[in-house]
Amino acid sequence: MKDLASLCYELVNIPSVSLDEAGIADYVESILQRAEHLSVVRIENNVVATRRDVGPIRYMVAGHLDTVPPSPGYSVGRKDDRIYGVGASDMKAGLAVMIGLALDPANTSPTRYLFYAAEEIERSQSGIFQVERQWPDALAVEAAILMEPTGVSLEAGCQGTMRARLTIAGKRAHSARPHKGINAIHRSGPFLQRIAAEDQRSVELDGCTFREALSVVRIGGGIANNVVPDQVELTINYRFAPDRKTEAAFAYLVSLFEGLMDQELGDSLVLVDSVDGALPNLSNELLDRLSRRVNAKRAKLGWTDVATFFDRGIAATNYGPGDPELAHSAGEWVAVDEIYRAFEVLSEVLAN
Amino acid sequence: MKDLASLCYELVNIPSVSLDEAGIADYVESILQRAEHLSVVRIENNVVATRRDVGPIRYMVAGHLDTVPPSPGYSVGRKDDRIYGVGASDMKAGLAVMIGLALDPANTSPTRYLFYAAEEIERSQSGIFQVERQWPDALAVEAAILMEPTGVSLEAGCQGTMRARLTIAGKRAHSARPHKGINAIHRSGPFLQRIAAEDQRSVELDGCTFREALSVVRIGGGIANNVVPDQVELTINYRFAPDRKTEAAFAYLVSLFEGLMDQELGDSLVLVDSVDGALPNLSNELLDRLSRRVNAKRAKLGWTDVATFFDRGIAATNYGPGDPELAHSAGEWVAVDEIYRAFEVLSEVLAN
Repeated sequence: MKDLASLCYELVNIPSVSLDEAGIADYVESILQRAEHLSVVRIENNVVATRRDVGPIRYMVAGHLDTVPPSPGYSVGRKDDRIYGVGASDMKAGLAVMIGLALDPANTSPTRYLFYAAEEIERSQSGIFQVERQWPDALAVEAAILMEPTGVSLEAGCQGTMRARLTIAGKRAHSARPHKGINAIHRSGPFLQRIAAEDQRSVELDGCTFREALSVVRIGGGIANNVVPDQVELTINYRFAPDRKTEAAFAYLVSLFEGLMDQELGDSLVLVDSVDGALPNLSNELLDRLSRRVNAKRAKLGWTDVATFFDRGIAATNYGPGDPELAHSAGEWVAVDEIYRAFEVLSEVLAN
Repeated sequence: MKDLASLCYELVNIPSVSLDEAGIADYVESILQRAEHLSVVRIENNVVATRRDVGPIRYMVAGHLDTVPPSPGYSVGRKDDRIYGVGASDMKAGLAVMIGLALDPANTSPTRYLFYAAEEIERSQSGIFQVERQWPDALAVEAAILMEPTGVSLEAGCQGTMRARLTIAGKRAHSARPHKGINAIHRSGPFLQRIAAEDQRSVELDGCTFREALSVVRIGGGIANNVVPDQVELTINYRFAPDRKTEAAFAYLVSLFEGLMDQELGDSLVLVDSVDGALPNLSNELLDRLSRRVNAKRAKLGWTDVATFFDRGIAATNYGPGDPELAHSAGEWVAVDEIYRAFEVLSEVLAN
């Protein structure tokens, strides 16, 4: 097995923006097929490698092959024990660790390694569902570790995320006579102030603090430079702690705008899409071992496929090399020592 | 001379959206050329008709040939003493009155009739400037009447209009960790509330009340559904009374946002364009006569070419058939009796 830093560097050098993962899937598949102790299955651009001859498979280690689009002007590089490039942190460093674990003949843990496509885009396109459709019990394990970047801390569970569209209405008029109309943009002021002033919930679950977040991520309105606008649309992103499900989360949003909404005028709040989060669920034996070994535990504030496992009753957590704050940022990089640290920790935890 | 209602109906039947005025200019030119008491000059798609043999020209009656684009589903028609169609009120009824006045051999007032193109679009393209470039003293009169729709009231002067761009800044972050950034959309709330709460000035000039208006006419911001946005842009339209010029009007806007602007973060307020208004200026003999004859006088809240004359030291006012509230509206129409009333009033006022 080659060294993991070079492996990570090679993976970063293979572009794999979502829906364009054939090249990286070929590369991963060809490396894994060399190991006789692995059974390797290719499903579209997803690769599943399972340890042979160790009895029933109990664990899964999973990571996505795709990246967000690269930022212009940033290239791949290696310098001062760092590897630079889009996907370095999210999550090709994690993929290198997974390949290292899978190829290690000394690692006899009953584990399946899932390399999947299209995680960074609209959820219904995710490779995890392609695998499940063709191999219904591929995910049927006791516990899963998602190798999302966590800075080799344990980031437990994940928050739900919801998108809602708030339409604020008005009445058109010529801007020389605005008193004949109702300016929808002016009306949006109190809505924005209420959102900005809202004290977000912090929820403690299994010793992890989930800090909710409510952000207006888009706003748009206006017809012409001399017309009082009759509509503004706001897109709200609400990240909600896993003690709430979509229904309760949306009910909270509705209650937030009480007294401001004028349905007769045409105001509306519509749920566009939502996906529930996942509870930390660290009572599982493997995750408990990982939690005690890592010794730094916090809540995952973003949404990850931990929720997909949670949905299926499978304990799962996020753990991997790479700073989560650098994910999707222009100058993304990963520290080489985190790659080796994650490999060492997981080798130990899976072995026990 | 044919009847003015039929003439208006024919004019409404000739499409003349801005920059497509050749057809209507041909039509107007050919009618006016039949009158031997007129000297008719064509300059691009503008037509200038001047009364011959009455000594120095003292007055101008002016109207634009173009219209805004028609609203889909509305057609030209005549019913119950109304003429329907885009431009009926703004301002083909006025053009019919102008043609009636110009063709009337009994009307010996020293008057020039200006039919000009491209008034409804960006000001630098206006036909009034094309005429002036080729015939520098074409506008050199004592007083001018703009036949914009005023419902046969006198609408004196006009307000200035300014467009300013307010940029509200923030700092990008992942929407799962908004506390790492600054949400520019959230920051726009207090700006909008200050604009909405502002008590607009009402200024009395020459017995006319100019009611100022401040409207946000466009808003836009946002990067992606999972990113805290770092910028919002607002377009503000400020209609200011003619006792203020652009500089003072913009200074007022700047002062309005005092204490909210954070220039270090990247907030800015930029003047995009502005055109001053015009004082009522009713001391001129012709306009005073019109004012006393009409007996219903108010301020023009929109901007019209009255300001272009005012700029050149020429007294000017708005007076014409057609409801100004119907201008640019989908079901635009004009009452036939207003056409005849305007013709009667102006015949009398110009004759005296």
